[in-house]
Amino acid sequence: MTAEFARVDLGRAERCGRPETIFCEGKLPGEVARIAEVLRAAGQPVLATRATSGHFRAVAEVFPEAVWHERARCVTVGAAGPSGSGFAVGVVCAGTSDLPVADEAAVTLEAFGQRVERLTDVGVAGLDRLLDGIGMLCACGVLIVVAGMEGALPSVVAGLVSRPVIAVPTSVGYGASFGGVAALLGMLTSCATRVTVVNIDNGFGAACAADAILRLAADCPPCDPPTR
Amino acid sequence: MTAEFARVDLGRAERCGRPETIFCEGKLPGEVARIAEVLRAAGQPVLATRATSGHFRAVAEVFPEAVWHERARCVTVGAAGPSGSGFAVGVVCAGTSDLPVADEAAVTLEAFGQRVERLTDVGVAGLDRLLDGIGMLCACGVLIVVAGMEGALPSVVAGLVSRPVIAVPTSVGYGASFGGVAALLGMLTSCATRVTVVNIDNGFGAACAADAILRLAADCPPCDPPTR
Amino acid sequence: MTAEFARVDLGRAERCGRPETIFCEGKLPGEVARIAEVLRAAGQPVLATRATSGHFRAVAEVFPEAVWHERARCVTVGAAGPSGSGFAVGVVCAGTSDLPVADEAAVTLEAFGQRVERLTDVGVAGLDRLLDGIGMLCACGVLIVVAGMEGALPSVVAGLVSRPVIAVPTSVGYGASFGGVAALLGMLTSCATRVTVVNIDNGFGAACAADAILRLAADCPPCDPPTR
Amino acid sequence: MTAEFARVDLGRAERCGRPETIFCEGKLPGEVARIAEVLRAAGQPVLATRATSGHFRAVAEVFPEAVWHERARCVTVGAAGPSGSGFAVGVVCAGTSDLPVADEAAVTLEAFGQRVERLTDVGVAGLDRLLDGIGMLCACGVLIVVAGMEGALPSVVAGLVSRPVIAVPTSVGYGASFGGVAALLGMLTSCATRVTVVNIDNGFGAACAADAILRLAADCPPCDPPTR
Amino acid sequence: MTAEFARVDLGRAERCGRPETIFCEGKLPGEVARIAEVLRAAGQPVLATRATSGHFRAVAEVFPEAVWHERARCVTVGAAGPSGSGFAVGVVCAGTSDLPVADEAAVTLEAFGQRVERLTDVGVAGLDRLLDGIGMLCACGVLIVVAGMEGALPSVVAGLVSRPVIAVPTSVGYGASFGGVAALLGMLTSCATRVTVVNIDNGFGAACAADAILRLAADCPPCDPPTR
Amino acid sequence: MTAEFARVDLGRAERCGRPETIFCEGKLPGEVARIAEVLRAAGQPVLATRATSGHFRAVAEVFPEAVWHERARCVTVGAAGPSGSGFAVGVVCAGTSDLPVADEAAVTLEAFGQRVERLTDVGVAGLDRLLDGIGMLCACGVLIVVAGMEGALPSVVAGLVSRPVIAVPTSVGYGASFGGVAALLGMLTSCATRVTVVNIDNGFGAACAADAILRLAADCPPCDPPTR
Amino acid sequence: MTAEFARVDLGRAERCGRPETIFCEGKLPGEVARIAEVLRAAGQPVLATRATSGHFRAVAEVFPEAVWHERARCVTVGAAGPSGSGFAVGVVCAGTSDLPVADEAAVTLEAFGQRVERLTDVGVAGLDRLLDGIGMLCACGVLIVVAGMEGALPSVVAGLVSRPVIAVPTSVGYGASFGGVAALLGMLTSCATRVTVVNIDNGFGAACAADAILRLAADCPPCDPPTR
Amino acid sequence: MTAEFARVDLGRAERCGRPETIFCEGKLPGEVARIAEVLRAAGQPVLATRATSGHFRAVAEVFPEAVWHERARCVTVGAAGPSGSGFAVGVVCAGTSDLPVADEAAVTLEAFGQRVERLTDVGVAGLDRLLDGIGMLCACGVLIVVAGMEGALPSVVAGLVSRPVIAVPTSVGYGASFGGVAALLGMLTSCATRVTVVNIDNGFGAACAADAILRLAADCPPCDPPTR
Repeated sequence: MTAEFARVDLGRAERCGRPETIFCEGKLPGEVARIAEVLRAAGQPVLATRATSGHFRAVAEVFPEAVWHERARCVTVGAAGPSGSGFAVGVVCAGTSDLPVADEAAVTLEAFGQRVERLTDVGVAGLDRLLDGIGMLCACGVLIVVAGMEGALPSVVAGLVSRPVIAVPTSVGYGASFGGVAALLGMLTSCATRVTVVNIDNGFGAACAADAILRLAADCPPCDPPTR
Repeated sequence: MTAEFARVDLGRAERCGRPETIFCEGKLPGEVARIAEVLRAAGQPVLATRATSGHFRAVAEVFPEAVWHERARCVTVGAAGPSGSGFAVGVVCAGTSDLPVADEAAVTLEAFGQRVERLTDVGVAGLDRLLDGIGMLCACGVLIVVAGMEGALPSVVAGLVSRPVIAVPTSVGYGASFGGVAALLGMLTSCATRVTVVNIDNGFGAACAADAILRLAADCPPCDPPTR
Repeated sequence: MTAEFARVDLGRAERCGRPETIFCEGKLPGEVARIAEVLRAAGQPVLATRATSGHFRAVAEVFPEAVWHERARCVTVGAAGPSGSGFAVGVVCAGTSDLPVADEAAVTLEAFGQRVERLTDVGVAGLDRLLDGIGMLCACGVLIVVAGMEGALPSVVAGLVSRPVIAVPTSVGYGASFGGVAALLGMLTSCATRVTVVNIDNGFGAACAADAILRLAADCPPCDPPTR
Repeated sequence: MTAEFARVDLGRAERCGRPETIFCEGKLPGEVARIAEVLRAAGQPVLATRATSGHFRAVAEVFPEAVWHERARCVTVGAAGPSGSGFAVGVVCAGTSDLPVADEAAVTLEAFGQRVERLTDVGVAGLDRLLDGIGMLCACGVLIVVAGMEGALPSVVAGLVSRPVIAVPTSVGYGASFGGVAALLGMLTSCATRVTVVNIDNGFGAACAADAILRLAADCPPCDPPTR
Repeated sequence: MTAEFARVDLGRAERCGRPETIFCEGKLPGEVARIAEVLRAAGQPVLATRATSGHFRAVAEVFPEAVWHERARCVTVGAAGPSGSGFAVGVVCAGTSDLPVADEAAVTLEAFGQRVERLTDVGVAGLDRLLDGIGMLCACGVLIVVAGMEGALPSVVAGLVSRPVIAVPTSVGYGASFGGVAALLGMLTSCATRVTVVNIDNGFGAACAADAILRLAADCPPCDPPTR
Repeated sequence: MTAEFARVDLGRAERCGRPETIFCEGKLPGEVARIAEVLRAAGQPVLATRATSGHFRAVAEVFPEAVWHERARCVTVGAAGPSGSGFAVGVVCAGTSDLPVADEAAVTLEAFGQRVERLTDVGVAGLDRLLDGIGMLCACGVLIVVAGMEGALPSVVAGLVSRPVIAVPTSVGYGASFGGVAALLGMLTSCATRVTVVNIDNGFGAACAADAILRLAADCPPCDPPTR
Repeated sequence: MTAEFARVDLGRAERCGRPETIFCEGKLPGEVARIAEVLRAAGQPVLATRATSGHFRAVAEVFPEAVWHERARCVTVGAAGPSGSGFAVGVVCAGTSDLPVADEAAVTLEAFGQRVERLTDVGVAGLDRLLDGIGMLCACGVLIVVAGMEGALPSVVAGLVSRPVIAVPTSVGYGASFGGVAALLGMLTSCATRVTVVNIDNGFGAACAADAILRLAADCPPCDPPTR
Repeated sequence: MTAEFARVDLGRAERCGRPETIFCEGKLPGEVARIAEVLRAAGQPVLATRATSGHFRAVAEVFPEAVWHERARCVTVGAAGPSGSGFAVGVVCAGTSDLPVADEAAVTLEAFGQRVERLTDVGVAGLDRLLDGIGMLCACGVLIVVAGMEGALPSVVAGLVSRPVIAVPTSVGYGASFGGVAALLGMLTSCATRVTVVNIDNGFGAACAADAILRLAADCPPCDPPTR
């Protein structure tokens, strides 16, 4: 079953352990709503990212139970069941301006059935705030650390906690931030190990990676290899 | 107990689940050998990365059982015990020129007590070779995908296998490769989800991240939070 | 015969095998319409690229048969006769967001008298979709492959099909896409041979190159060398 | 049949119309000689690019008939039969410093069975030299235009000749040439159409693309699509 | 005598041979008008660059004889007397989109009392057009060559004419033009000598340099060195 | 009094509070020795930076009391008297590879008569080491923080200590470090205030700035303004 | 005491010698007003930077005595007492377009209780203007030098005055200014010593650094080291 | 008459007013000597730039009167007669490290028959030195200003002297100099007018432009336009 303007991959939920997501940028509201219908008809939850309020309204007209996560720019209809690993994902955020990206990660994780713990506004120039939350972070299974500007927070967190750290640079900043490049380079050259990095502002991608890690920990079977 | 020219962090093995590693670049052979002695005296295995044959000879003079991994530019003395997750790490490599980086990842993982499966010379321009190995990759717990030039291999692998994929760009290539930048950007902007990225040529960092993921899956306890 | 604000090169159709095209950016609607009149008066078809609806309305006022290709941002009046090579051009597109560029290539080719086959939404992270279309691509004479983000699709296609592949990076993406730079670098450093590259978003240029290849295959005589 | 350190793709000659090439960078002389043996045992010609004199000596020890193309940094043993299109490839070169790249293109083409015409030292600041050769260029089926510094030659050539033009930027130059970036950008933004571009210094890639174009013109059948 | 928000340098006309110019960007219309009054009160002509129609209206309210050069974004009130060298400045322009920058150069030169000859829409992909105008260019004393995209025109012009050539890259183009960077690099790495370059879109700066050259040729005395 | 190949500014010691320094790069050993003689003849101490052992030997031949600071690549003969502020400069260093730059800063400061406190190998991924030294840092008047890779250390230090922090990025690192660019951008975009930045590897410049700050605190009179 | 959407660090005034500042970008007007209330309730002055008139109105509704510094884009309520060093900060500005950044520095300094001297519109191409003001600059304790375009002013100033110089590049300019990058690089590579640099347009950061220098000169005690 | 490996353009002396120059990079010593012979046989002087001592020895074997300008890396045999404008070219140089580039400009000018005045080691951080030489500069017809690092000298010079200023950035510097990019950007964005720029380290190009300006001032006839 397909919408006429895009191939919808209904097999992905079985194959990869989580539903296909709708990336709204460059899609008309009606198109997003139509893809949502195809997904729901197949019994799947819906997660639409990079959505505008126009996208939300189009989806909500069809599914009144749709939820609008404004700061995260996400629309959800339903959610996957719990993933079963027993671990939460810690979503850590350097400044309040980084919240939209951290929220995108959190909303995505919850739509995928993962539990999320949040720690916000803990920049490296004020270590006290971070150290207060470190106990909670140590109990998480994987950490998503979101930061703009110099992007130093993942290095510090990975030095304190021994779990996998997924770093998300944000485009927050000005001048020599170069739209997130400074943070991106800082994270890639981190002196801490266990840090891996996703694209600038890609809270969604970080959530997908964290989800895959926890599914492994929950001993989810992998997808079947494609038959040839 | 410390060497006089660098602080050796003996507590890391307990705190973070794996021994401190010696980064040889900018260190004299004698300095590396001395740090190795400190680590061995504390009962820890030794992994020295970015080593030259000179570094190896200095270590081997003290520890004749030291092993020289030439292409990986690593020296090992002993290894950690098995990590216990039951999963192997799949180390996939686009071209033969990328082997030094893939080897660094593999040697590191084995020094950390992880099992490694290898798939080599499977560039995206020859899908047959990759598809032949996909069954083995699906059985791994996490994949490290190493590629230079356009760096497209992680995208293709992540589309076929549902486990976490750690992408390692290499500086292999010329012209518009810009020393690995093309591969790095390609991996960061991957259309596949579940892909996270480490620094150019950073096989060691990818191994550390994979190790942390498998330790989580093996239900290793996290490090204790630092007391204040 | 010339319009007063730009030299119109009426000789190009004979000399180069296809009509002069109007690049609308930076031209007023009335200017575009006036150039169209000059071309039509010389018996030539009209192709206006990077057009706005304002440009279209100005042309349509003079030539009611003008066609508005909205997503391709092109206006056409008439078309050249069939080019005679017997081959079609395959226009392949990684994601739905790349469609405006793929459409510009397709509209241009049809205005030049070439036959076009389309394959859409076949990103490298979902190889199944691509492999389903490979038979059709193998029958084409030349392929135009349009992709943003990591730009890996041309490498994969060129590994499967032995015809010339013209890669078009698009500015689709965010963060480390850098407005198409990631895709551009990926295509330039492709590990596949037979791939050549045009400017970011330059569907028109890719079409011109494909057209020249098929004219050669159709044994069109070259233009006369300029007399001195 | 395979060499133990790399998978040799013997099927490529049938599938893609020309033999596999050996990229020597990062390979030991003995490895290159061994791959050459595998190829010759399968009845194929050998083309080794980016070769050093050490690579040549290793191959010549096994195959005394091997030819050393010093400036092109290539080794050949045998060559493919004529491709049959009746057209030559024009290889045009802006300055004498660009000759190594132009030679790599020419040697590759001849190894693939294509006929080559050369035009050398025709920079855009001395149009007379270029205009003298334009008649010969117009008779070619496809043009490879090699230039460093500002890379303007392909634009000028494509304005004079109506065949496909493949532009090769070279790393020749200093300062703001940035190792070929200035030429690369100049070629990508060419105001002339029919120009496509390959990587900096990639004479080999340009030759592969030109070869594919002439094979199409010679009505060579495409490769079979891969069976699934 | 000064306006209160900026120091107006009335001595520059004597010291440097031409009046101070008003750069309007970042200045309010009223501020520009006030500076114009100060200049006129000192008997000097007015040239305001990067002006909006709002700036023009403010000046025209005070000086009804003010002229609005729309495409050049300049306002002039009066002009300097003829410079006396006997030579004109040739202002050459690659495409119609480059006209605003070429116009800024021409308006500036005329305000400085220089004579201007124009040659427009002579891109390097259509040499015929350029060669038709070369006789006129050879009679000029200095040439300003304005081009965007690959910026090859100054190289070609300097190969044909033996006078000083001032190259002006423009921000015209898209994708790999990078807002004029491709043209800038092309001009800096020109294989032609006698080419010097100014900032992207800086028609005004090119005019100032050309003016200084012709004043030298007219044997204008230099400014007095500042007394200490 | 001058050496014949360079103007030696003997007045600077009086005018600016510290002696002229010799930057050795691009100077012959004999030239450096000759400048040293001129300085000593005027009763000034000598500091030569970016020196090779060849430079040292040439100076030591004339002044046997010259000191060779190998890792700092500096030669000193004598030193200025104590600056009198009562404060020390804290020189903090992230990794052992950064020591040459930190040493250049320390040697320079001591040559200028400042007291130096050192803290070494305190990367942000191991906060314990840094926190152990924070008491000493709080007693300093100004801090120079040297770091390569992600360059996060100045942010963390400035969050803990309220004195001026001068950040020095180093070229230590590989891949996305881009020769110190990652560290430079990280320091420029620091979320901590009171951080200012000098050029990559510029330990000397950081020392000069710290020296000027402490001279102000010591109430040194400024230089006289130049008479006109 | 905290606002619910951000942690307000009331301890900073004691710990670091000056109040916490509100960075308005990305914060809603009501959020800024609420943080201001928290600060005022703790007896602290308020400085809000990067404010819009909307932010001002929200603050002024609560504190009618709030002041709107339009060009500096700052809101202040109250100010700290005099810092006591006896020195002023000289704020020097190359062009009138750089005034918003210079004003941000000046407003910040006054909110921190520092005295400010201004010198405006003294670009390096008109040295007379600068030399007229040099006497005043020599009396200041520290200089903030703000410049866009080529950013040469700090080099010239530091050559004339022996106090610490903090350079602030601005994003003023076009073309090869690259949004302040040209000025930034110019300042980082200054041939003058004693120059340190902050981020592009970061007048606030320069003021913080200058404030810390004068507090040192006034013998303010440092913050207490954090207890562990 | 031609050498077999390169077309020698003997007509250029008549056509463009000065002899063809030999760019030695990438040419063998024997090739350079052979081209010199061709030029001398045509009665022309020889200027070989970017020469090594090997190139010099090859030329000196044929022409014992050849002169080796070591720091300028130039070889000359003979020189053109005086150009007749009556003006000298002022060659100004910021630091002693910039001398090779300044020398290349001076040697080139003298080979072209121009008179040269030199001013050396006059960086902007020491204005006194520059102001001492300003009288001499004011008497020159055109100025070549050579500077590395921040490249601010041309701005200051052009503010003091009203003649055309040709700025030459050099690759002198480290870190954020980026091989001359900082100086290049500084010169392109100069706040002074009358400044035009050539490529990094291109002393030769600056000399050619200055030569063309003085030939114009000397009323040399232009070259004939090429006949068609």
